[in-house]
Amino acid sequence: MHGYASDKDAYLKRLRRIEGQVRGIARMVDEDTYCIDVLTQIAAVTKALQAVSIGLVEEHLAHCVVDAARTSPEEGAAKVKEASDAIARLVRS
Amino acid sequence: MHGYASDKDAYLKRLRRIEGQVRGIARMVDEDTYCIDVLTQIAAVTKALQAVSIGLVEEHLAHCVVDAARTSPEEGAAKVKEASDAIARLVRS
Amino acid sequence: MHGYASDKDAYLKRLRRIEGQVRGIARMVDEDTYCIDVLTQIAAVTKALQAVSIGLVEEHLAHCVVDAARTSPEEGAAKVKEASDAIARLVRS
Amino acid sequence: MHGYASDKDAYLKRLRRIEGQVRGIARMVDEDTYCIDVLTQIAAVTKALQAVSIGLVEEHLAHCVVDAARTSPEEGAAKVKEASDAIARLVRS
Repeated sequence: MHGYASDKDAYLKRLRRIEGQVRGIARMVDEDTYCIDVLTQIAAVTKALQAVSIGLVEEHLAHCVVDAARTSPEEGAAKVKEASDAIARLVRS
Repeated sequence: MHGYASDKDAYLKRLRRIEGQVRGIARMVDEDTYCIDVLTQIAAVTKALQAVSIGLVEEHLAHCVVDAARTSPEEGAAKVKEASDAIARLVRS
Repeated sequence: MHGYASDKDAYLKRLRRIEGQVRGIARMVDEDTYCIDVLTQIAAVTKALQAVSIGLVEEHLAHCVVDAARTSPEEGAAKVKEASDAIARLVRS
Repeated sequence: MHGYASDKDAYLKRLRRIEGQVRGIARMVDEDTYCIDVLTQIAAVTKALQAVSIGLVEEHLAHCVVDAARTSPEEGAAKVKEASDAIARLVRS
C-alpha cells in the first residue's frame, strides 16, 4: 500500500482540477487572451502541481521510507537514496 | 494581435499534450502507482509548462514590449514593468 | 552604460549582504548546526539571489532591450533573444 | 551528530567556493559587467546552492530521519514532518 492511499480521493480531486486548469489555459490561448494573463494562469498551475508533489513526498517519507528504515538499514538506505533523487528532480524542475 | 498568434496551433498542441499528461497522472494515482513514479511524471509536466511559459515570455517581449518601446518611452516602460512582474512570478513559481 | 548603473550601490550592498549570509552558512556547518536550520538559511540566500536577478532582468529590459528596440528591429530582436535565454536559465535554475 | 558530519570538510569547501563566486558577482557589478553575464553567474551560484541543499537533505534523511524512525513511530513522524517542511521551502525557493 502506498503512502498516498488514504488520501487518494483528495489527490484525484486536485489532479482533476489541475487538468481543468490546463484545459482553461488552452482555451485562453485559443481565444487570444493577453499573454501576461496566460502566464499568470500557468504559474498558478505550476504551483498547484508543486503542492501535489510536496504532499506526495511527505507521505512517501512517512510511509515507504519510514517502513523501510524500520525493516533494515539496507532497505532504509535504498529508499532514502531513491527519495532523495526524486526530491532533487523536484527542486531542479 | 498577440505575440504568440503565429504559433497558436503549436501552443494549443503542447497544452493539449500537457492536459493529457495530467490526466495520465490522475490515472497513475487511481491505479496506486508507486509514489516515486508519480513524482517523476509531475516533474516532467512542470518542465513542459515552464517551457510553454518561457516561449510565451519570449514572444511577448519580441512583439508587445518591442512594439510599445517603439511607440513611446512611456508605453515601453509600462510594458516592461508588466513583463518583469510576470517573469518574477515565473521565477518564484 | 548598463541598465543597473543607477542602482549600482544598492546592488553591491545586497550582494555583500548575500556574501555574508553564505559565510554565515559555512560557519553554521562548521559549528555542526542542525541540518534543517542550515537548509532554511540556504533557502533564504537563494531567494535573495533570485530577487537580485529579477531586478537585473527588469533593468536590462527597461534599458538595453528598449534602447535596442528603438534603434532598429534587428537590434531589438537580437537583444530580446539574448534576454529570453537568460530568463529561461533563471526559470530553470 | 548530524547527517553531514562525515562530509563536513567537503561542504565547507563548497560553501567557501560559493562565497567566492558571490564576491565575484559583486566585482562584476562594480566593474559594470554586461547584465546578461551577471545573470548567468547568479544562475550558476543558485544551482551550486541548490546542490548543497539537495546533499544536506539526503544526509538528513539518511541519518536523522532514519534514526528517529528506528527509535519510535512518534519520533519518526515528527522528523518526517520537519524534513517535509524544509523540502517544501526548497522546492518553492
